[in-house]
Amino acid sequence: MSQVKVIPLGGAGEIGKNCTVVEQDGDLVVIDVGLAFPHEEHYGVDIVVPDFTYLLENKHRLKGIFLTHAHEDHVGALSFLLPQLEAPVFCTPFTAAMVRMKLEERAHLQGSTIEVVEPGATVDRGALKVEFVRVTHSIPETCALAVHTVHGIVLFTADFKFDFTPVDGKLTNVGRLTELGQEGVVLLVSDSTNVDRPGWGPSERRVTEGLRKVVQNAQGRVLVTMFASNIHRMQQAIDVAAENGRRVAVTGRRMEQTIDIARRLGYLRIPEGTYVRLDDVGKFAANELLILTTGSQGEPMAALSQMSRAEYGRLKIVEGDTIVYSARPIPGNEGAIWRTVNRLVKMGAEVVYDSDSPIHVSGHAYQEELKMMINLVQPFYLAPVHGEPRHQFLYNRIASAMGWPDHRLFTLSNGTVLHMDDEQAWIGESVTAGEVLIDQHGNVAVNETVLAERTSLGADGVVVVSMALDTELGDIVSRPEAQIRGFSGPVSAVEDAIDSANDVLSRLTSTNLKDLDKVRAAVSEAVRKTINRRCQQRPVVVVSILESD
Amino acid sequence: MSQVKVIPLGGAGEIGKNCTVVEQDGDLVVIDVGLAFPHEEHYGVDIVVPDFTYLLENKHRLKGIFLTHAHEDHVGALSFLLPQLEAPVFCTPFTAAMVRMKLEERAHLQGSTIEVVEPGATVDRGALKVEFVRVTHSIPETCALAVHTVHGIVLFTADFKFDFTPVDGKLTNVGRLTELGQEGVVLLVSDSTNVDRPGWGPSERRVTEGLRKVVQNAQGRVLVTMFASNIHRMQQAIDVAAENGRRVAVTGRRMEQTIDIARRLGYLRIPEGTYVRLDDVGKFAANELLILTTGSQGEPMAALSQMSRAEYGRLKIVEGDTIVYSARPIPGNEGAIWRTVNRLVKMGAEVVYDSDSPIHVSGHAYQEELKMMINLVQPFYLAPVHGEPRHQFLYNRIASAMGWPDHRLFTLSNGTVLHMDDEQAWIGESVTAGEVLIDQHGNVAVNETVLAERTSLGADGVVVVSMALDTELGDIVSRPEAQIRGFSGPVSAVEDAIDSANDVLSRLTSTNLKDLDKVRAAVSEAVRKTINRRCQQRPVVVVSILESD
Repeated sequence: MSQVKVIPLGGAGEIGKNCTVVEQDGDLVVIDVGLAFPHEEHYGVDIVVPDFTYLLENKHRLKGIFLTHAHEDHVGALSFLLPQLEAPVFCTPFTAAMVRMKLEERAHLQGSTIEVVEPGATVDRGALKVEFVRVTHSIPETCALAVHTVHGIVLFTADFKFDFTPVDGKLTNVGRLTELGQEGVVLLVSDSTNVDRPGWGPSERRVTEGLRKVVQNAQGRVLVTMFASNIHRMQQAIDVAAENGRRVAVTGRRMEQTIDIARRLGYLRIPEGTYVRLDDVGKFAANELLILTTGSQGEPMAALSQMSRAEYGRLKIVEGDTIVYSARPIPGNEGAIWRTVNRLVKMGAEVVYDSDSPIHVSGHAYQEELKMMINLVQPFYLAPVHGEPRHQFLYNRIASAMGWPDHRLFTLSNGTVLHMDDEQAWIGESVTAGEVLIDQHGNVAVNETVLAERTSLGADGVVVVSMALDTELGDIVSRPEAQIRGFSGPVSAVEDAIDSANDVLSRLTSTNLKDLDKVRAAVSEAVRKTINRRCQQRPVVVVSILESD
Repeated sequence: MSQVKVIPLGGAGEIGKNCTVVEQDGDLVVIDVGLAFPHEEHYGVDIVVPDFTYLLENKHRLKGIFLTHAHEDHVGALSFLLPQLEAPVFCTPFTAAMVRMKLEERAHLQGSTIEVVEPGATVDRGALKVEFVRVTHSIPETCALAVHTVHGIVLFTADFKFDFTPVDGKLTNVGRLTELGQEGVVLLVSDSTNVDRPGWGPSERRVTEGLRKVVQNAQGRVLVTMFASNIHRMQQAIDVAAENGRRVAVTGRRMEQTIDIARRLGYLRIPEGTYVRLDDVGKFAANELLILTTGSQGEPMAALSQMSRAEYGRLKIVEGDTIVYSARPIPGNEGAIWRTVNRLVKMGAEVVYDSDSPIHVSGHAYQEELKMMINLVQPFYLAPVHGEPRHQFLYNRIASAMGWPDHRLFTLSNGTVLHMDDEQAWIGESVTAGEVLIDQHGNVAVNETVLAERTSLGADGVVVVSMALDTELGDIVSRPEAQIRGFSGPVSAVEDAIDSANDVLSRLTSTNLKDLDKVRAAVSEAVRKTINRRCQQRPVVVVSILESD
């Protein structure tokens, strides 16, 4: 009998770069193709994408790519994958519009196509059928994906929460989820990001109340910062602005683009006369303005960050401005965010980053919501994803408390192959998976060697030693000279290092001096050791030997 | 009439490197000499200390250094300051022991002395008297310092909270604080770290309950991580271990040292037979052990971090271990902490970082406690420190709500001079202040140029171009060659850069070729521009020109 395989290439044991393969009878579909953000040890890395080796090796079997929603961690790596293979990409209308915008920026679709699917529809691709089931999340038209296999339904929850008063009024299709449970969900691949939050998360609607309070109390301009894709949040801010007689302007290129698309397609409703161009804000009184801005994560080049350094030409922060952080910090960004907040406070702005009435709520299910999903769809097997190991561990403990036996709970990592036949499920041999670090300048991958070199260069700098040899005669033409960059040790340590290089050279025979590699290695070692002994620093040492003859 | 000046050299508008000067009649005392930790943009920096220029310029007037408590952000820069001047250092017995330990490690006292002062005592130094008033905090014998000046008392709260059930049973001397208020506090220099937390903070004692629950439920070993100086927390963990029949071992050099001192001086009570050497833990069953460990901030070289990478030879994490994070992340450390937690979870450990019963409480006053301090001492002027601008702003807003008029509230920055005479207080011209970045390897300062170079090196690497010229004849002896480190652009971009360097050289006359600086500048510019044009990267370019003649 056919086997079904589920293989995460990203997003299992991490929050970011979601990408999972489902296979049956030689046919293969992919759920999401996301990117992740680098952490602070990823020197000079802008984004991280999954290692697509397995997909590329099996691209002839790929029947389609299915997207749950338009967040970067679910669609952001398409521009790296699509140039390397051809496949139809299936997604809801809003996701399609967002993806098209991003692909136009960075890559060409090549032979791939974007196929629009309405929530509720099912797509038949070879041995597999994929059904789009609407769920609530912080971006429009998010869908759980039910992959109908020969052994039952593999249900990807997507990022979800049970929000009964969503901003767009469109509820989770709980009825269909229940039916799927009755038809037989063999495996639930569930969001687990907020599994450490007890209870039931607040509705997105609560943020309207929080923003309303802030806006009503503000004497001057109000700036609201959020993720550039957070359409629902923008809608709330716009609604609150309009009801308080404020115009809305937008800063930040990505946010402008998103608003433009969302407005054109009807996902964002801006009351007549409310929207004003950023360059026109000067025509209005401070208390007639609300400005949406990027920069909620302290990103150095985002609009709000530039404003905090008084480097943003189109808008200056002034005393009396109120700035609302309507986003949760991604762990690791806190330092940069607080530095930005402090600069804004020093400029005389009031910064609201916490409030009795929430000014931000999460788009992800809390504990009780995760349990409700399990209860609705009654899966046989469970595999939490969209979580770090600590989240997966907690999720499985909760499922265990709900009565699921341990052998039906899986903790997947990227590359893990979960096999299912009609009797059991088991973890087989892994496939290639991992992270590819992208330096967006030039769109190139940063390999481990380069990363290690950057780490050393960033910590202790570089010492460049240059010399010239006559490799025919085995003569020293120019003795070693040093230059330093980013090195904080004493000059005398470098002088000693050059002395030791000269000592090494003087001990080499003229035969040895004809062997460039040997000379380079000996000089390099002498320089490194001397500097380390003198000042405990470990700069990168580059030895350059010119050959003259 | 005499003027009194209060000049923060560190800790005003930041959390870290506390250091404040108080002056009157030409005499000068210093309150605290702390260090700060670098943030992620401080490449290759280990610690940050205040710029002591002002102190060094006025060291002949310095009458004494007074320490509030033994935390690194209050005493950690002594080893950088004391080698540069002579002064008596006044502090409580416990602080003295901790400071002596640290100074023995890093520096000599030179002509300075450490003078032990009991809480409650007053030290007379020239025109100024400094009184030690006990407060509760997360380390023993913390004292507020009352500097008696001609215009009234300048009261430094130190880091404090109002804990009515402190671990050591020693309460804040509220009576004396009240008396000081009656005598006349002209200026309150207050902790403001937790001003954004509403209400009254929980007692340190609550943590005992939290730890007790964890230990009682644990089947295997329990590891508790905390700051290495957190004696009270260690006491609680030890007490809970003892009452549950567990032995206590310690990992991490700094923690071992602290425990050794605290035990010898009677600040830490370890029940007979409870303490075991780390190398002896193998002799006990897993559920008979509790291990105190460093690494609560994800520091790469700390014991717990090494364990999480299976690199700590003396202790291996095994399935069934419970690891308790009894410390709050310093903002910016979250990423490293979560990465450590995830590695521990993957090893099969249960990690407790949050709990219904607190496993950590802050040592700093919450809003209502800060108000209580104001209420007790009835200061004329107020100046929040030990806070970032966002904390200072909130503190002053609270004081304003309590009835203090704006002109009596000051927001000090490092270097700000707050003058007081018998009629008013005002901000005068600033003195030199700032941060000195220390690379602990070699104990050297990292200047801005080096930091900027490291930033570039870390982001895009280095391209080294070497060549040789005959500067007498103006001839090219060896044409440019390139080496790269940490550079992720395509090889062809470097080849193009070398071509452009050759183009530049071919356009230079032999007269120009005799001018090394000109050649270096021209080649460097050509290489940088070509690489940037080809792949948008901005590596550091080092041009090395050997002269042969």
